Amino acid sequence: MLETLRKKVFESNMKLVEHKLVISTWGNASGIDRERGLVAIKPSGVSYSKLKISDIVIVDLDGNVINGDLNPSSDTLTHLELYKSFDKIGGIVHTHSSYATAWAQAGVGIPIVGTTQADYFNGPIPCTRDMTSTEIENGYEKETGKVIVERFTDLDPMSVPGIIVKNHGPFTWGKNAEEAVMNSMVLEEIAKTTYMSKQLNPQLTMNPSLTKKHFKRKHGKKAYYGQTGGTKR
Amino acid sequence: MLETLRKKVFESNMKLVEHKLVISTWGNASGIDRERGLVAIKPSGVSYSKLKISDIVIVDLDGNVINGDLNPSSDTLTHLELYKSFDKIGGIVHTHSSYATAWAQAGVGIPIVGTTQADYFNGPIPCTRDMTSTEIENGYEKETGKVIVERFTDLDPMSVPGIIVKNHGPFTWGKNAEEAVMNSMVLEEIAKTTYMSKQLNPQLTMNPSLTKKHFKRKHGKKAYYGQTGGTKR
Amino acid sequence: MLETLRKKVFESNMKLVEHKLVISTWGNASGIDRERGLVAIKPSGVSYSKLKISDIVIVDLDGNVINGDLNPSSDTLTHLELYKSFDKIGGIVHTHSSYATAWAQAGVGIPIVGTTQADYFNGPIPCTRDMTSTEIENGYEKETGKVIVERFTDLDPMSVPGIIVKNHGPFTWGKNAEEAVMNSMVLEEIAKTTYMSKQLNPQLTMNPSLTKKHFKRKHGKKAYYGQTGGTKR
Amino acid sequence: MLETLRKKVFESNMKLVEHKLVISTWGNASGIDRERGLVAIKPSGVSYSKLKISDIVIVDLDGNVINGDLNPSSDTLTHLELYKSFDKIGGIVHTHSSYATAWAQAGVGIPIVGTTQADYFNGPIPCTRDMTSTEIENGYEKETGKVIVERFTDLDPMSVPGIIVKNHGPFTWGKNAEEAVMNSMVLEEIAKTTYMSKQLNPQLTMNPSLTKKHFKRKHGKKAYYGQTGGTKR
Repeated sequence: MLETLRKKVFESNMKLVEHKLVISTWGNASGIDRERGLVAIKPSGVSYSKLKISDIVIVDLDGNVINGDLNPSSDTLTHLELYKSFDKIGGIVHTHSSYATAWAQAGVGIPIVGTTQADYFNGPIPCTRDMTSTEIENGYEKETGKVIVERFTDLDPMSVPGIIVKNHGPFTWGKNAEEAVMNSMVLEEIAKTTYMSKQLNPQLTMNPSLTKKHFKRKHGKKAYYGQTGGTKR
Repeated sequence: MLETLRKKVFESNMKLVEHKLVISTWGNASGIDRERGLVAIKPSGVSYSKLKISDIVIVDLDGNVINGDLNPSSDTLTHLELYKSFDKIGGIVHTHSSYATAWAQAGVGIPIVGTTQADYFNGPIPCTRDMTSTEIENGYEKETGKVIVERFTDLDPMSVPGIIVKNHGPFTWGKNAEEAVMNSMVLEEIAKTTYMSKQLNPQLTMNPSLTKKHFKRKHGKKAYYGQTGGTKR
Repeated sequence: MLETLRKKVFESNMKLVEHKLVISTWGNASGIDRERGLVAIKPSGVSYSKLKISDIVIVDLDGNVINGDLNPSSDTLTHLELYKSFDKIGGIVHTHSSYATAWAQAGVGIPIVGTTQADYFNGPIPCTRDMTSTEIENGYEKETGKVIVERFTDLDPMSVPGIIVKNHGPFTWGKNAEEAVMNSMVLEEIAKTTYMSKQLNPQLTMNPSLTKKHFKRKHGKKAYYGQTGGTKR
Repeated sequence: MLETLRKKVFESNMKLVEHKLVISTWGNASGIDRERGLVAIKPSGVSYSKLKISDIVIVDLDGNVINGDLNPSSDTLTHLELYKSFDKIGGIVHTHSSYATAWAQAGVGIPIVGTTQADYFNGPIPCTRDMTSTEIENGYEKETGKVIVERFTDLDPMSVPGIIVKNHGPFTWGKNAEEAVMNSMVLEEIAKTTYMSKQLNPQLTMNPSLTKKHFKRKHGKKAYYGQTGGTKR
């Protein structure tokens, strides 16, 4: 059971490399076993080119290492905060993908201006507020999780499965690590195209009905995109 | 006969991957057999990495599945609208290629400022108008086709074989699916270079004689580009 | 002799693909045998993926096909005009490389702001003027050559081995086709970095002494860059 | 001993190619043996595709060739100036990587707006001042080293292991050539993302506590990033 989670989390980490979302040791994917309250996560500072399944660290929800020889990702406490607050998510991905990071460094959320974004995110991608010096100096990684959660007070994390952390980079999630990777890839593509759209036209607009239409075409009971949702047309 | 069309449409879909115009399941190519009134199109939500020839769905012009086990692309009704209105086209391609999508999200047509565009498109690439909430909520995919056709009231679809749909992405077409793929690739390259040209100089200009010269050098009776058109110089 | 030139011109054309300076059939390289007054050039509209050595066409300086089964490049008369006016050049390359084309479409020459440009081009890269409708409609390809030559009235083509043709794309040259390819690659890299520099700082400056220093470090009797020029330091 | 240094410097040069930081002959890596006062460096004008271990040149701190058949890099005297002034560095890398060069040509230092930069550079990446014509015309390469050193009067080269030289490109360093390569790769990624951030928001901000936190998380006695620093969390 634990080995299955470990293997899936390893594979999701390696998919980040395949999709060119991470370089060097930057970024990490994790997955949770909700029943046992255990999280599998990438070890800290290990290069993706050398990562092995057995390197994946198992921690409990307090961050104690339960199984594994290496230190878990330095971002572990951020992941745990999200698992504790967003109870439907099963996987989390953090990257420093170039375009999403550019928006994070700019401290600007990504407006919704295209149907691809609407297919996966039911609205704009939010950006966290500046962290205070106190938050940074005391329990920085845990506090990073808290400012993310704070931003979702009025948002459903399953409808908007990602955020950009100011001056840092994107975090995405999903029902498992694999879906979190997909959302990370989509976020980077959105970050790229919308960066360019904004250079072409500073006054971007999109009819909110279009967002709703595309999101509902892929999610929920009346979904009809793909081979499984809704009735065959 | 149907199998030949199916195979060609499959190959055109795979060329979209080769030219890096699509990722994941986004985008689709179709082709029509005008005599039989049948259209072959990519199935909905199937990843390009797993697509097989036999997955290609055959529909009639009303969108009924005539042959195939899968749901056709969610964009099928858009394709059908174009086949019904543009009677000389034999293939259609829809992608979310990055630069063309950036223009679509900006809601701005691509001006003609280079000879490459003139070689394939005899003028600017138009952008559709905003769709109304009614159009989006009732028969969205068919209405998408209709706003494309509406934009061609005063334009020849064989001289300007493509458009960008606001907030969505590009559609291109041609005498068959293969030519539609080529036009999609050209549109992306145009979208890229003209994006940059606009950053370098907001006041872009081009002598209309140059557009005419380049388009006629490649199209029509007096064409002399390549190995088949016109007389050997 | 002719076969050696043909082979070298073929190889230079293929290097354009390797350096990602051309896609599809766009672009061409040529070389001249000055003694015999013959030029070897890519055939028109032939895809690089199918190009063979024997496809290279041999023409005389009036554009007559002397040897070869295919039509020469539609840009042949432009190349010939340059060979006739710039008597020290031995090879010419024309591409539609993305960044250089962006500058061409913007109708703006590339200012000199970096030492890489100074290593190969002893100053800014000029841009041709708009062609008149008469020039476009009557002998367009030959006239394209003439507006290039016109721009070099006060410039040495061996010190500035390239130009961007407004609304079209770059032409580069050199003592042979191989050097013209190198200059084409350098021009694209310059076009890319200077595009970005201009976004970062609209007021670009460079001390003219730096241009002179870098150009002379690589060219002329006192050159000391590399393994052959000047004395060993 | 000398052969070990030579091999490591060769490998670092080749890593520049692997990370796509250099093209053609542009750029060079060196390493120093502090005890013997000898520096191994890439030869001048040799293409990376043909570079062999035995081509690496050994020079003393005055620039005399001690071992090797080729001319050392034309930038050798710049490297030596840095080794003489920054006594803790063991390796230096110079590239013309695209984004870092864009900033260099713009003559603008890279502000610190992201945690990735803070992980490796404890603040903004500085840009050198304009060199005077006298400096360019007399001992240009040595003077390039001097303007770099001058910029570090109030900066610790081990905390900010790199700089961009105006109109030229980046130089990075580290405790050995391998670390200098890593810093060069990081600098290029920072240059890319911050270029885009600046287009998205001209008024970039970052809490200085965040820079300090990230730098100290990876450097010094209390470091806890990775598998070796600090205590296991």
